[in-house]
Amino acid sequence: MSEPRLQVVEVPIPEGANVIVGQAHFIKTLEDLYEALVTSVPGIRFGIAFCEASQKRLIRHEGNDEELRKTAIDACKAIAAGHVFVIYLRNAWPINVLNAIKHVQEVVTIYAATANPLQVIVAETSQGRGVLGVVDGFTPLGVESEDDIAERRAFLRKIGYKK
Amino acid sequence: MSEPRLQVVEVPIPEGANVIVGQAHFIKTLEDLYEALVTSVPGIRFGIAFCEASQKRLIRHEGNDEELRKTAIDACKAIAAGHVFVIYLRNAWPINVLNAIKHVQEVVTIYAATANPLQVIVAETSQGRGVLGVVDGFTPLGVESEDDIAERRAFLRKIGYKK
Amino acid sequence: MSEPRLQVVEVPIPEGANVIVGQAHFIKTLEDLYEALVTSVPGIRFGIAFCEASQKRLIRHEGNDEELRKTAIDACKAIAAGHVFVIYLRNAWPINVLNAIKHVQEVVTIYAATANPLQVIVAETSQGRGVLGVVDGFTPLGVESEDDIAERRAFLRKIGYKK
Amino acid sequence: MSEPRLQVVEVPIPEGANVIVGQAHFIKTLEDLYEALVTSVPGIRFGIAFCEASQKRLIRHEGNDEELRKTAIDACKAIAAGHVFVIYLRNAWPINVLNAIKHVQEVVTIYAATANPLQVIVAETSQGRGVLGVVDGFTPLGVESEDDIAERRAFLRKIGYKK
Amino acid sequence: MSEPRLQVVEVPIPEGANVIVGQAHFIKTLEDLYEALVTSVPGIRFGIAFCEASQKRLIRHEGNDEELRKTAIDACKAIAAGHVFVIYLRNAWPINVLNAIKHVQEVVTIYAATANPLQVIVAETSQGRGVLGVVDGFTPLGVESEDDIAERRAFLRKIGYKK
Amino acid sequence: MSEPRLQVVEVPIPEGANVIVGQAHFIKTLEDLYEALVTSVPGIRFGIAFCEASQKRLIRHEGNDEELRKTAIDACKAIAAGHVFVIYLRNAWPINVLNAIKHVQEVVTIYAATANPLQVIVAETSQGRGVLGVVDGFTPLGVESEDDIAERRAFLRKIGYKK
Repeated sequence: MSEPRLQVVEVPIPEGANVIVGQAHFIKTLEDLYEALVTSVPGIRFGIAFCEASQKRLIRHEGNDEELRKTAIDACKAIAAGHVFVIYLRNAWPINVLNAIKHVQEVVTIYAATANPLQVIVAETSQGRGVLGVVDGFTPLGVESEDDIAERRAFLRKIGYKK
Repeated sequence: MSEPRLQVVEVPIPEGANVIVGQAHFIKTLEDLYEALVTSVPGIRFGIAFCEASQKRLIRHEGNDEELRKTAIDACKAIAAGHVFVIYLRNAWPINVLNAIKHVQEVVTIYAATANPLQVIVAETSQGRGVLGVVDGFTPLGVESEDDIAERRAFLRKIGYKK
Repeated sequence: MSEPRLQVVEVPIPEGANVIVGQAHFIKTLEDLYEALVTSVPGIRFGIAFCEASQKRLIRHEGNDEELRKTAIDACKAIAAGHVFVIYLRNAWPINVLNAIKHVQEVVTIYAATANPLQVIVAETSQGRGVLGVVDGFTPLGVESEDDIAERRAFLRKIGYKK
Repeated sequence: MSEPRLQVVEVPIPEGANVIVGQAHFIKTLEDLYEALVTSVPGIRFGIAFCEASQKRLIRHEGNDEELRKTAIDACKAIAAGHVFVIYLRNAWPINVLNAIKHVQEVVTIYAATANPLQVIVAETSQGRGVLGVVDGFTPLGVESEDDIAERRAFLRKIGYKK
Repeated sequence: MSEPRLQVVEVPIPEGANVIVGQAHFIKTLEDLYEALVTSVPGIRFGIAFCEASQKRLIRHEGNDEELRKTAIDACKAIAAGHVFVIYLRNAWPINVLNAIKHVQEVVTIYAATANPLQVIVAETSQGRGVLGVVDGFTPLGVESEDDIAERRAFLRKIGYKK
Repeated sequence: MSEPRLQVVEVPIPEGANVIVGQAHFIKTLEDLYEALVTSVPGIRFGIAFCEASQKRLIRHEGNDEELRKTAIDACKAIAAGHVFVIYLRNAWPINVLNAIKHVQEVVTIYAATANPLQVIVAETSQGRGVLGVVDGFTPLGVESEDDIAERRAFLRKIGYKK
């Protein structure tokens, strides 16, 4: 029972994109995520990469946007943890696709969905690497006041998400 | 790739309450969790807090019980990790609400749902903080015997959960 | 806010089996996972163990295969973290059962579903233990080429999973 | 290809109760619906009846409230269509339980969830009977005005369902 | 047990729109469907109408497109069956929103999602009206040949829905 | 508002098979149902047919068992209603696949899942045909006694579905 070494991996967010990082099982994940994304939002642009954890052990990838696909591959290179996937998306928001992704039959968990600066905490052992968690954006600075609450609710109504 | 600092954050459980800790995305989480909870169980009492991870970076909060709401805010202050949410509930059990929460479109994962003493393992980096996992209650003391199995099954039938 | 001690726990994979490791809430998990598994795939063989986190604090177990049940108990002994469950299965694949497991009303998250060598990263505090993440198989060795992509897609069609 | 005979079956609604009528498959429906209901809302009172469609062809029943159980049996006697189920509930609303019911693995569809006077349209053939649809309450009398919209939104906020 | 009168109601499809017709429960359906649609696809345009079945018995409506909203109201006027809803959408396809709609906690069933000419079969009793089913487009003219299969599969890949 | 003509269509059940009849939207249904079925149960045998409702208006089909595929095509010929699908399956039970089918993004509803003699009630108009409902097996003969209840519960435990 040796102790793992922890690392902080920076996951870049291209301008206007969001990133989703999760854990899955089996290379069919790639096509299933592709289909879940492309059939959720017309006009969505995305790249997906997935760390195959046995056999050829390749960073597998799909997508319909070459820049986002390359960025996803680079993020998987940096994380380098078996069965992790990284999705970058544009022309769509995580809320448009998260339930479809959660229901993909290979997906076991999602670590983060964000447009914030993202750090992935990775454990390294003699066998390999695994994601332990994420630092998604920044720590809170205070507690919402009554005015902040009113502003938050008004904002969601201004953008049409709530009545 | 610096190394994160790990901390153990104690999450208090008020008498008779349960706590649910998870990771989400976007401040709409607050109202969506509110609606998921209030429409799941008539008479449910709860407080929700959520660590906004960018912009104003406030601990946002909703609920219909001031004590539980305040306790959730305090737990978020202690965890202080971007996009984490904490829910305390009374007059309802986690099993009554967990599937509704999993399906909220901003929720990415849930770390724990428990009435046990809860510790949250937090990683701190130069950027911010993130949840790595939880210590939910205590370590096991032994393995269930045939009598324990019979007792467990009988208990679930006595409380009416199984036939 | 003391610092936790991290350990790497090896989770063995019996020949031809897959393992699923997750976090749940409440001992009803056992029967609910049992029913979810046995009604998902005719002929499935499995063992389930779950670390009760309070009261008797027993490793609770169910299943229809004594070897897999014993292996699940042993994995829970090694992980020894409150509310963690371990499932071993044969005659079925994780993709056949993962969505049913995600929807079990006590399940909060799944850490891994794999046939690869699996290491679970566990944090130990003065209170108890908790899972932080997993090392699922091995780190990637390279990036998929066009030929690899064609081969991957052809493989999924050869086994009949895609048209 | 003979023509079926259509009937209108009145489904009574006991004071303060709601009824849910649906189609399922296999007698395990009874226990699965029982568990879905009893674990959704603490204190829920309900009765379930289900028309077994082969073998003994009995109206099977479960529940934790004898009056509602008897009413469900009576409704199944009147509908008398293979694989139909009827649930009556008190101390809970259909919105608290509908998603759990939809996800029961034997349930194929739901025809109605209502506290209104309910009529079930049944087709009768030489083989048996089947539900074609429902008359749930009454026909509309007009179109919502701006004032009605404001009143509707205010009502949902007054009862705490929306912010 | 009188016999109902059956009617065929024509549901018009505005150029470029799709229609979804279903059965729900309770006026909160309106806001919940509104939120499910607006948060599923950025830029979606839609109108929703719902036949309130008791009390004021109004055709309630929401939406972000006045033409589609008016068309939905007109369709509800023609169907005039308690707890039925009609959604028209543009800039999105039914596959983008159907799973979100199925999961709305008031929705009991969906009768059709289509861009084809749609007829709704309505039963009328002395109490009111109910939907029995739909005629969605036209009857089949033949059976798919090997060439048709190849063409179908190629089409889905040409539009990017499958690999 | 003409009156539709009603027909009773017999849907044959091959020895040892089950049938599932539902309503969907769009020809991608075929491949999505194929994938949902083949990835739910190892060794499942099935045939799927679907009535395309516009354009070429073909009975489209997929599957991995030629007899069941042909039977599904024949059932669609007899029903002949736009956007209806028919699935026959062997080596698997409806409970193994129903939740996966409900979640296919084109599926709007399921009319029946059964091994009983099945009749589908079809409405015919000048435009086309639509399913109104089913007669699934036979009408009930009586009400379950205490002994029948005990026998039912014992049966589910004998086949291992419940503890």
